Amino acid sequence: MNAPVVPNSLRRPVPAGFLDALKAYFGARFSNAQAVREHHGRDESPYPPMLPDGVVFAESTEEVAWLAKQCHEHRVPLIPFGVGSSLEGHLLAVQGGISVDLSGMNKLVAVHAEDFTATVQAGVTRKQLNEEIRDTGLFFPIDPGADASLGGMAATRASGTNAVRYGTMRENVMSLKVVTADGRVIETANRARKSSAGYDLTRIFVGSEGTLGIITEVTVRLFPQPEAISAAICNFPSLQAAVQSVIEVIQMGVPVARVEFMDTWAVKATNAYSKLDLQESPLLLFEFHGSPAGVKEQAQVVQEITRDNGGMDFQWAEQPEDRSRLWTARHNAYFAGLQLRPGCRSSTTDVCVPISRLAECVGQTAAELDQASFPYTIVGHVGDGNFHVLMLLDPDSPQEWEESEQLNQRLVQRALDMEGTCTGEHGVGLHKMEFMLAEHGQDALDLMSSLKAAFDPHNILNPGKIIPQH
Amino acid sequence: MNAPVVPNSLRRPVPAGFLDALKAYFGARFSNAQAVREHHGRDESPYPPMLPDGVVFAESTEEVAWLAKQCHEHRVPLIPFGVGSSLEGHLLAVQGGISVDLSGMNKLVAVHAEDFTATVQAGVTRKQLNEEIRDTGLFFPIDPGADASLGGMAATRASGTNAVRYGTMRENVMSLKVVTADGRVIETANRARKSSAGYDLTRIFVGSEGTLGIITEVTVRLFPQPEAISAAICNFPSLQAAVQSVIEVIQMGVPVARVEFMDTWAVKATNAYSKLDLQESPLLLFEFHGSPAGVKEQAQVVQEITRDNGGMDFQWAEQPEDRSRLWTARHNAYFAGLQLRPGCRSSTTDVCVPISRLAECVGQTAAELDQASFPYTIVGHVGDGNFHVLMLLDPDSPQEWEESEQLNQRLVQRALDMEGTCTGEHGVGLHKMEFMLAEHGQDALDLMSSLKAAFDPHNILNPGKIIPQH
Repeated sequence: MNAPVVPNSLRRPVPAGFLDALKAYFGARFSNAQAVREHHGRDESPYPPMLPDGVVFAESTEEVAWLAKQCHEHRVPLIPFGVGSSLEGHLLAVQGGISVDLSGMNKLVAVHAEDFTATVQAGVTRKQLNEEIRDTGLFFPIDPGADASLGGMAATRASGTNAVRYGTMRENVMSLKVVTADGRVIETANRARKSSAGYDLTRIFVGSEGTLGIITEVTVRLFPQPEAISAAICNFPSLQAAVQSVIEVIQMGVPVARVEFMDTWAVKATNAYSKLDLQESPLLLFEFHGSPAGVKEQAQVVQEITRDNGGMDFQWAEQPEDRSRLWTARHNAYFAGLQLRPGCRSSTTDVCVPISRLAECVGQTAAELDQASFPYTIVGHVGDGNFHVLMLLDPDSPQEWEESEQLNQRLVQRALDMEGTCTGEHGVGLHKMEFMLAEHGQDALDLMSSLKAAFDPHNILNPGKIIPQH
Repeated sequence: MNAPVVPNSLRRPVPAGFLDALKAYFGARFSNAQAVREHHGRDESPYPPMLPDGVVFAESTEEVAWLAKQCHEHRVPLIPFGVGSSLEGHLLAVQGGISVDLSGMNKLVAVHAEDFTATVQAGVTRKQLNEEIRDTGLFFPIDPGADASLGGMAATRASGTNAVRYGTMRENVMSLKVVTADGRVIETANRARKSSAGYDLTRIFVGSEGTLGIITEVTVRLFPQPEAISAAICNFPSLQAAVQSVIEVIQMGVPVARVEFMDTWAVKATNAYSKLDLQESPLLLFEFHGSPAGVKEQAQVVQEITRDNGGMDFQWAEQPEDRSRLWTARHNAYFAGLQLRPGCRSSTTDVCVPISRLAECVGQTAAELDQASFPYTIVGHVGDGNFHVLMLLDPDSPQEWEESEQLNQRLVQRALDMEGTCTGEHGVGLHKMEFMLAEHGQDALDLMSSLKAAFDPHNILNPGKIIPQH
């Protein structure tokens, strides 16, 4: 497969002595070994690795601030690294520089159960957080599939299966501790549920993908563990019937906690990979949270809607272990999909449209993909209007890569034409930069550029990302 | 009463011929008549009027863009005006310039009922919007009391009684049309429920109080009109018992739609003003939204909690007209309060703290106010940790003004010490600028200043607000 073109491959030279200074300061927690650089120069995107010149394993905000000061002074790129699960080339060192690995900053700073908030270091992962707060009766709902770090999730404005009920990182980050480009440390907000005290610095950094500052602590909202949870699978005769049901569920205002779509191929792949025996037709996976009566009521309304659309009877997963198996299978749909074509390389997409256009958008996309030379699966957080296509490509076929890129471009254009977005939750990174102009227009992009220049005048923070270079 | 000191009273001279050019372009929709300037140079704050040099009644985004271009080129301040209901001096022309009145931009642009969104011109008020969409079965929940314009509500990050359930303008604005300082027109986002496509321009403008751009259209989320609504009043033997009940209701995760606190004086004032016979002790006003069963269940849980805290039996307002009377009375609490001291002038406050600190914060504040030389009332959107004090001052007593300012300062400091904010929903305007440093710190304020300079390099957009001048 041809390597995707990297828009800005101009590596900046690192000044003489710079790496030595980092070595002197961080000791064994600095490395420029090839293997370490390779690990920090790749993510889950289809891009080939682009290596940083060195990697710092930071253990405190103060260390990150010191590092930022050095990079600022010497004009060296600085790229934050969580667990490396980004999907669009976010952390590739297209201009070289230093990768700052925050995975060692993995402590809970404070849990205020009575306020439903937790403050964690940026390297804490979502599963770790939920393990550590289990006894409080609270949980952190945002679930992008991967066991991502909270810092990374904030930086990419992540969401996932629970967003339809609980929102995305945009709604659930209350405050951030951020190291600025020149090495100052700020807190973006306090712990009040709401505030009108000036510009929304929190939301400026959420989704900024490391280009405006380095997030070192995250304060998030927590929610009560639901008194009752139930989950059910519903199979449908067609993709359209499934998606139409979701539209009606959302339009009825049913507060479903999760509603996930899998097409027939995704179901087949999941059966094979996770050793399940789901009926192999398009399906929806529902989860309901609430009081026992509330959950029952929600499920009844939803079942009426699905029946009206030709859906089959619900298959319930009542027990926690059944639900857990089901959701693990859903989260593994990506890896399961890869097994549909052993040895393949994948390209994933991520668009989001207003719910009224979802059936049309998914339908047109599937019809086009059915003509493609390679297999694909479609899964989606369809309650938000968000879905993904996994395209399974022959790694030795430049034609297939080119074809997948064209399909991706048409899909994005279709989403934009329907008042949607080129990325619902994966972020821009490198791979979606080409769509930023079409989505936002030049004047809005210019404002984004001016924000970037104001916050990072020497363009050292994850340079070459988000905003296309002229 | 002494006029509060205006931090920056340096009026900028308007260049010769500038007003004539506006007159030529806008005709009768430009005015520099004294009465018109006075109307646009005051708000509901305790500040004396600060008049703009002229007022433009805009009817389209293109007109606002043309006006911004002129102001940008000639360095003339430009201040957006909705209905004038701001509370902290937001729209006072401290540096002179042009007030652009958007109240004539009062059309619904598009209602997408199937997506739960509405796009409106900035001058549409929240009541107008709800009137016009009534037949869709949807409603717009955000309710700051005043019948404010949607543009103004977005600009101040408004919230109000329903925020505990439905969020604030931060969560409910999906997209904005904005005129930039130099007269370009951007859309901040599309209508997808979520997006990770670059910097969050929407949230940058929400709460920016006209200092970063002029909002001319607002796309907001709508919600299904609840199947069932019930409202109830619960009286308590003490302020602490009432507030403690709220804390427990929130901590139980009950999705109350509204929970409003009124202290004894606020209740007395409301009885007199709205001709009600509420029992004159601290009370909570609850509203529950949901299915009939869900509403019943919520109310049961809440009643158990209030009883445990010494609350009296619920008094129900089952009929729409009863509820409407009750909420009208609540919204009139401000005007009712003024009647406690005929001829008084008022000063209102607005802080928000984490819910766990609310009882302590309200209790200490009430204890201090009991020693004050003037009457006061406390009301609050306590489910968010947000409350207001209305201080009723002798307009001829500089001492009382000074005393109220000191009480306000101590209240804000108390809120900040409890990890809260100096303004939960009113915004900064002029009156809260002095607390911005204490709340955010110099480094965060510097970032805000750099954002302002990037978006408005000639400092023409509502200058002298939000960020304290050095």
